[in-house]
Amino acid sequence: MRFRPTPRDASFFELLAGTAEHLVRGAELLTRLLGADRTQRADLAAQLHAVEHDADENTHALLRKLNQTFVTPFDRDDIYALASTLDDCMDDMDEAGDLIVLYKIGDLPAGVSDQVAVLQRCAELTAEVMPRLKSMTGLSDYWVEINRLENHADQAYRRLLADLFNNGQDPIAIIKLKGVIDALESAADSFERLANTVETIALKES
Amino acid sequence: MRFRPTPRDASFFELLAGTAEHLVRGAELLTRLLGADRTQRADLAAQLHAVEHDADENTHALLRKLNQTFVTPFDRDDIYALASTLDDCMDDMDEAGDLIVLYKIGDLPAGVSDQVAVLQRCAELTAEVMPRLKSMTGLSDYWVEINRLENHADQAYRRLLADLFNNGQDPIAIIKLKGVIDALESAADSFERLANTVETIALKES
Amino acid sequence: MRFRPTPRDASFFELLAGTAEHLVRGAELLTRLLGADRTQRADLAAQLHAVEHDADENTHALLRKLNQTFVTPFDRDDIYALASTLDDCMDDMDEAGDLIVLYKIGDLPAGVSDQVAVLQRCAELTAEVMPRLKSMTGLSDYWVEINRLENHADQAYRRLLADLFNNGQDPIAIIKLKGVIDALESAADSFERLANTVETIALKES
Repeated sequence: MRFRPTPRDASFFELLAGTAEHLVRGAELLTRLLGADRTQRADLAAQLHAVEHDADENTHALLRKLNQTFVTPFDRDDIYALASTLDDCMDDMDEAGDLIVLYKIGDLPAGVSDQVAVLQRCAELTAEVMPRLKSMTGLSDYWVEINRLENHADQAYRRLLADLFNNGQDPIAIIKLKGVIDALESAADSFERLANTVETIALKES
Repeated sequence: MRFRPTPRDASFFELLAGTAEHLVRGAELLTRLLGADRTQRADLAAQLHAVEHDADENTHALLRKLNQTFVTPFDRDDIYALASTLDDCMDDMDEAGDLIVLYKIGDLPAGVSDQVAVLQRCAELTAEVMPRLKSMTGLSDYWVEINRLENHADQAYRRLLADLFNNGQDPIAIIKLKGVIDALESAADSFERLANTVETIALKES
Repeated sequence: MRFRPTPRDASFFELLAGTAEHLVRGAELLTRLLGADRTQRADLAAQLHAVEHDADENTHALLRKLNQTFVTPFDRDDIYALASTLDDCMDDMDEAGDLIVLYKIGDLPAGVSDQVAVLQRCAELTAEVMPRLKSMTGLSDYWVEINRLENHADQAYRRLLADLFNNGQDPIAIIKLKGVIDALESAADSFERLANTVETIALKES
């Protein structure tokens, strides 16, 4: 089942929330992909890619609206930054899933599940916060928590990287796995950038 | 022979078209470099680098003009985005040529020619579309075609990546070749970003 | 000893200069880290990370001020670009120090010292130029020199890369060292981007 793009007459907040919902769905697929066997993985990566495509259409609708609207709820540049950073989060997760399949990676180290669990939580928090941009209330808990989660993701990433090089694995396996964990780390960074943008918007409006 | 930078009193459209012409010339040199032997390759990479340098000067002239002009044909930020993305396209192609020489790579897989053929076509379409920004006509064919081409480049890239890891090559050869095909994939992404910027400008003006 | 963040009522110029001072301190720590043994390296990397953290707080103070100030000394976007590029310089240097420790790298090639010496000089020039943004005088020497230094860094980087692949090292050592020299090259690029931003500001004001 594919998510439907958000309807044509949706508000900026609805469009942003719609893209964030795609992130939640993407993170769920990525979580399932980790635990799946090779055949299921290819199918789940295809589903993840379909979600990425739907998110793209949503972003496109938002940009179209942005470019044809004279008065926007907050700075045009900030809406643009939100949309493009949500897109980065999705692309990074999609890339990670894609590389796991493309590289025919077998079992993944437990640390990768930690990385993805953080992304899942970040996606959920992001989906919750987007509609609250309308009232500009209860935003600070979100960015504090995302920063805490990103810190956690960063530690998981660094442990994975150290293990990867110190466990006597063969170089090709290292290159492949490094590609995957780099993409997941990049997704966590994108979620943090998104939280920074929300904080900037809140500061301006306060 | 080196391209001359565009003259001092050129319009924004002429300066953008001038940089795009450098992209066409750069893509041609990259195409020839793929088929050349090692000595010729070093020479062609040097020529490519000279074209990159000329494109830089052109971009510099454009930014100078932008910063000293009060009324611009469209949003200042959009002109800046066009200039800096044209620059990214050039840098990525230059890097690919440079790495082929620096890494002393021998024969390249056929898929690399596919990647470069797409870049060549993207450069030509970009050079054709830049002057049309003046009248804002016939732009949509361009971005639709670039998106189609980028999709094609993406498939060539993913096939190359899968082959690279599944053909039993030695790790050092993999690292080197991955550097080249990543740079070419990044160039295709830059051309797509450029097309998205043109689409954004067209949407605003419509 | 940790640097204190710049005081709360500091001007934009003082805040920018404060961050640049952190870059000088960071580059010094990185220089010492190169020549240190493994135990000292871990300690120096931790100090470098603390400096990065202080620089972050400084940047945060600057962004808060930016978002709550109606009239800024020059374009809001340009102040934002300066702050975020100073941040990139710091992050890249921090990453390089971190990887040296995380990867348990032993002796480093001499070329790495060349890279870091350039960064040290770039940081010093940057700390000198930030306060001069107030009077907009004596800026051109700075960006000309940074461009010269970045060119020098680029040559050191390319020599290191060629040596790395042609000296018969094992693939894992190559991947590790490439991570470090890529981060240092990225720091040099960030300093160049910073100089370009200063040049842009100077052009607008002239």
